[in-house]
Amino acid sequence: MAPKYAPNLRARLPPVALFLQITFIVIFAFCVEIKQEKEKEKENEKLFFYSYAKFQDIHVMVFLGFGFLATFLVRYAFSSSAFGVLVAAMAVQWATILNGFLWSYPSGRKIQIQLKSLVDAELCAASTLVAMGAIQGKTNPVQLLIFALIEVTGFVVNQWIIKTMFRTQIRTHWLYSIVLINIFGAFFGMMTSRLLFHSEMQTKHEKEKAGRTTGLFAMFGTLFLWMFWPSFNSALERKTSVICSTYLSLAVSAVTAMAVSALSSSKGKINLVHVQSSMLAGGVAVSAVVTSTHDLWVAMTIGLCATLLSTLGFRYLKDHLLLVFDCHDTGGVLIVHAVPGILGWFAKLILRVTKLNYTLAVQFAVHHICILLITVSVSLIMGVITGLVLKWSFWKPQQYNKYYDDQAYWEFPNLQAHK
Amino acid sequence: MAPKYAPNLRARLPPVALFLQITFIVIFAFCVEIKQEKEKEKENEKLFFYSYAKFQDIHVMVFLGFGFLATFLVRYAFSSSAFGVLVAAMAVQWATILNGFLWSYPSGRKIQIQLKSLVDAELCAASTLVAMGAIQGKTNPVQLLIFALIEVTGFVVNQWIIKTMFRTQIRTHWLYSIVLINIFGAFFGMMTSRLLFHSEMQTKHEKEKAGRTTGLFAMFGTLFLWMFWPSFNSALERKTSVICSTYLSLAVSAVTAMAVSALSSSKGKINLVHVQSSMLAGGVAVSAVVTSTHDLWVAMTIGLCATLLSTLGFRYLKDHLLLVFDCHDTGGVLIVHAVPGILGWFAKLILRVTKLNYTLAVQFAVHHICILLITVSVSLIMGVITGLVLKWSFWKPQQYNKYYDDQAYWEFPNLQAHK
Amino acid sequence: MAPKYAPNLRARLPPVALFLQITFIVIFAFCVEIKQEKEKEKENEKLFFYSYAKFQDIHVMVFLGFGFLATFLVRYAFSSSAFGVLVAAMAVQWATILNGFLWSYPSGRKIQIQLKSLVDAELCAASTLVAMGAIQGKTNPVQLLIFALIEVTGFVVNQWIIKTMFRTQIRTHWLYSIVLINIFGAFFGMMTSRLLFHSEMQTKHEKEKAGRTTGLFAMFGTLFLWMFWPSFNSALERKTSVICSTYLSLAVSAVTAMAVSALSSSKGKINLVHVQSSMLAGGVAVSAVVTSTHDLWVAMTIGLCATLLSTLGFRYLKDHLLLVFDCHDTGGVLIVHAVPGILGWFAKLILRVTKLNYTLAVQFAVHHICILLITVSVSLIMGVITGLVLKWSFWKPQQYNKYYDDQAYWEFPNLQAHK
Repeated sequence: MAPKYAPNLRARLPPVALFLQITFIVIFAFCVEIKQEKEKEKENEKLFFYSYAKFQDIHVMVFLGFGFLATFLVRYAFSSSAFGVLVAAMAVQWATILNGFLWSYPSGRKIQIQLKSLVDAELCAASTLVAMGAIQGKTNPVQLLIFALIEVTGFVVNQWIIKTMFRTQIRTHWLYSIVLINIFGAFFGMMTSRLLFHSEMQTKHEKEKAGRTTGLFAMFGTLFLWMFWPSFNSALERKTSVICSTYLSLAVSAVTAMAVSALSSSKGKINLVHVQSSMLAGGVAVSAVVTSTHDLWVAMTIGLCATLLSTLGFRYLKDHLLLVFDCHDTGGVLIVHAVPGILGWFAKLILRVTKLNYTLAVQFAVHHICILLITVSVSLIMGVITGLVLKWSFWKPQQYNKYYDDQAYWEFPNLQAHK
Repeated sequence: MAPKYAPNLRARLPPVALFLQITFIVIFAFCVEIKQEKEKEKENEKLFFYSYAKFQDIHVMVFLGFGFLATFLVRYAFSSSAFGVLVAAMAVQWATILNGFLWSYPSGRKIQIQLKSLVDAELCAASTLVAMGAIQGKTNPVQLLIFALIEVTGFVVNQWIIKTMFRTQIRTHWLYSIVLINIFGAFFGMMTSRLLFHSEMQTKHEKEKAGRTTGLFAMFGTLFLWMFWPSFNSALERKTSVICSTYLSLAVSAVTAMAVSALSSSKGKINLVHVQSSMLAGGVAVSAVVTSTHDLWVAMTIGLCATLLSTLGFRYLKDHLLLVFDCHDTGGVLIVHAVPGILGWFAKLILRVTKLNYTLAVQFAVHHICILLITVSVSLIMGVITGLVLKWSFWKPQQYNKYYDDQAYWEFPNLQAHK
Repeated sequence: MAPKYAPNLRARLPPVALFLQITFIVIFAFCVEIKQEKEKEKENEKLFFYSYAKFQDIHVMVFLGFGFLATFLVRYAFSSSAFGVLVAAMAVQWATILNGFLWSYPSGRKIQIQLKSLVDAELCAASTLVAMGAIQGKTNPVQLLIFALIEVTGFVVNQWIIKTMFRTQIRTHWLYSIVLINIFGAFFGMMTSRLLFHSEMQTKHEKEKAGRTTGLFAMFGTLFLWMFWPSFNSALERKTSVICSTYLSLAVSAVTAMAVSALSSSKGKINLVHVQSSMLAGGVAVSAVVTSTHDLWVAMTIGLCATLLSTLGFRYLKDHLLLVFDCHDTGGVLIVHAVPGILGWFAKLILRVTKLNYTLAVQFAVHHICILLITVSVSLIMGVITGLVLKWSFWKPQQYNKYYDDQAYWEFPNLQAHK
């Protein structure tokens, strides 16, 4: 008979978290310093302000938006919101260090921290949170911490490979990363989830469902992501066209998601979880093309197609097809982040190729597809590694009947008396 | 006997929503382009940033604030938050097109989109959401879409009439619209609600009440509206005096709303729904006068009076007097938006007239009152039209016992197992 | 036998609130005016925007963050969120007046209001809300209003004393106040709570516990405080180093809080209320040192130590030690705000003293410790006065069995029918 209680994490979570945290502090002490501000204070103040507002939008998306996006699970809201903060707080520190080592350290000086470093680190953390969507509820917080460290490492290594290989071809390199964040995270999370699969998961878990109240909390998280997505897409290039394209694409997404969700239900009813996830698909897909087109209708059409795929995928693919591959996806990240991302990626290919002559077009297409393949490959390989590491019973994963349940990790001293 | 289930909207909502959405995309493809940015990039960046922050405040108010404002209904939180997004996403696109046709298109060029266009469109959407407050829970999402299109059309036409008639008299014309948004929306919604009235609605619906949890969600929405209202009032003229006046007026509103709500209850208890709505009344009323006075105490006094009227109106007028006119008002928009708006409108009249000589004062008063009368007339006429259109049974309105109920539109696959 | 119902506040709350509100409006009418903006409009616009973004961050923290921070109590969410707004709205007006009288009025002119005045006033209100955390649920709204007025008065007087005594030594005087806000508020609230103690409170109240849903609302409030704390610490000096230090310190706090909460539980489970409060401790502690060090690891270490103290304090001190002193602390403000604040204060002392020569070091240490002692003394004295005033039965405090209960103040007309 299975044990009644979830494993006690007292001997796992605190040591791992505190060890990592103290290690990070030591690394910061020896290798990191704040970038000295130049004498041009007046100019600086404007730049500071510009950076700070950008930083804050991403900050809200990462810590509030992604955290509450997964609160829809009826018994998992404490965990999804709080572990989102835990994982992101770790990922941000680790990404700051790794980014620093890869891009700044070779110069021999200490890593220079500025606001932009934090924005870049938060984008890495966003990738981790996307990936985490696939394994939500099936892993304990210690596993999530390990997961976050490997994911950030993989993401930064992938960036490094791409930049090293295509140094001459890529100018606005970081802009690529907004869509790659989603693709990398989604495939990484899916592969990890595949490795963690076991036969019990073939039947639907009784707690894997949305609740009335938790669905509203998820609506809050979704809305913060949805509202601030224009800031996300313009994280590294703030232009009116980027904002307007993303904004209108997201508006189309919201309308399409509700329409298609009702259309694909025999009773004509809308599924809130599908809508919440799919209304972000337009933002993911359009992030690939915002710098390649000034035509708003193109962005809107891509938003419509991405949402169509995403909503139908939620209805027909998620439960059935994925279980064929023994791959369980709690938050539907493959459908919400990978599929629209790849759609956007190929839309960008078409948009660019049609504007170039034959030689340049072939060259661009090869580079473009290579980057996608490298990203997918690195994410899948790192996902396999992560899955193998997380399967280690040392981490004390919870038993199946404690999946999707806050009670495994949180004190509810007065639960019985709570309405 | 009435049918047990709400009508199946599969053959209504998806076709209407997708048809409208694709039509909008086609219009965008042929008639809209992003405004080219000038060469003065440096200057532009500052202006961009300035516009973006303004845009984002309004964005949060429209999609988060108004959506969650109406979640107080105990069984209608999914619908009010999600349909708010649906309606606003449609309204924004339609308003962009209409505003473009009316103000930009005559020049023969395509409609030029910039961030300001989106801000203007969101202000139109705000008007729709105000109006929607009156018919929340009594209409299905297809009706809401039609409602939104006519409302935006009416609002833009009203703006056009006023500007055409008073072209020489109005300089800071848009500033008028902040208060007119509320007045137009409220009368439009009330008149539509009047047309949709039927005899069953004379008794209070069992689901038309606030819940503990949903009341807290409504508090979130209210607070976002309340906190960002200074940005709303300064949407078209950012000045310290506008911010400070609105801020202090809202602070007075919050205090007054709680005091008056307790005063008007025989048990001395406060009604959260009354407070949530009435603490916004000061913001509505003061939006009319912020450009006419620099005296903070005037703004504060107007805030106090508007909240007094609004809170007392909620307690004594809403249920009784309105039912005399067979006019049901779910969110109390007449009391929250129309009454304070008209109060502010006349306060502005008095403030201006006392500063002018006799001839100018009479002239101003005539124009000022004419604008109000035109707005009210257009909104009432358009409201009648909307009501007649929405009564058409083709839209499959839900039966009375499915009013204020998420179950008519949303899938709750595991409802029975939900705590 | 105790009365069944909570006292009727109809004859207390409305008269007190409206009297205070009208008095404030009269004072504003005679003594306050908006500061005239200079002719340099272009420059001004930038400054305006700079101030407005700063103002808005603080605004969200005060009205949304602090309000919802205390919603964790299972039956007190309406009260904590709405009374937070009530108290803050009063405190802001009173602080504007008091600050104006102390700093602007002596020049003989009217008090000049600008956006900075509102930021300063909101910082005073933040101090009140910190203090209110200690007496949440044990006082009625009339008592909270009186409490707020005395707290703001005490806080402003304390600022005045410090500035008068150390005029020559303190340049960046306001920066002191960010940490003093927390220390002053916490000791003030604790002392008031001590005075209000009665023997029934020695046993744990059945309603003083967290709920599942209310815990999530508290998570929202906490996250808004946590995310915007960098803006809080940089309220009066916006520098990259302040932002980065605070940000990383808070990240460390979040990780440490969860680790230590699990470590100190025999079952290895995390307590959400402890985590929510303790993850802010790093922000409090580091606010004292952000201007004294550019080393990020110092800020992170201080964040770690402060959170360690705070989390352990919640687990072992709050319930046991405090009851030894007959001092009940609903929100744990002593542990969350006072202890980390004092830790940060002494960390700053050490950081500064080691950089100065002997004479200057002694001088600095004396001033530094004097300021702390004066603040603690003033807050304790004012807390005693407040406690004595609030004990007056004229305010109709609720009986013990109505503590932590929304039903004492809020209408729930359909409570019985609510799920």
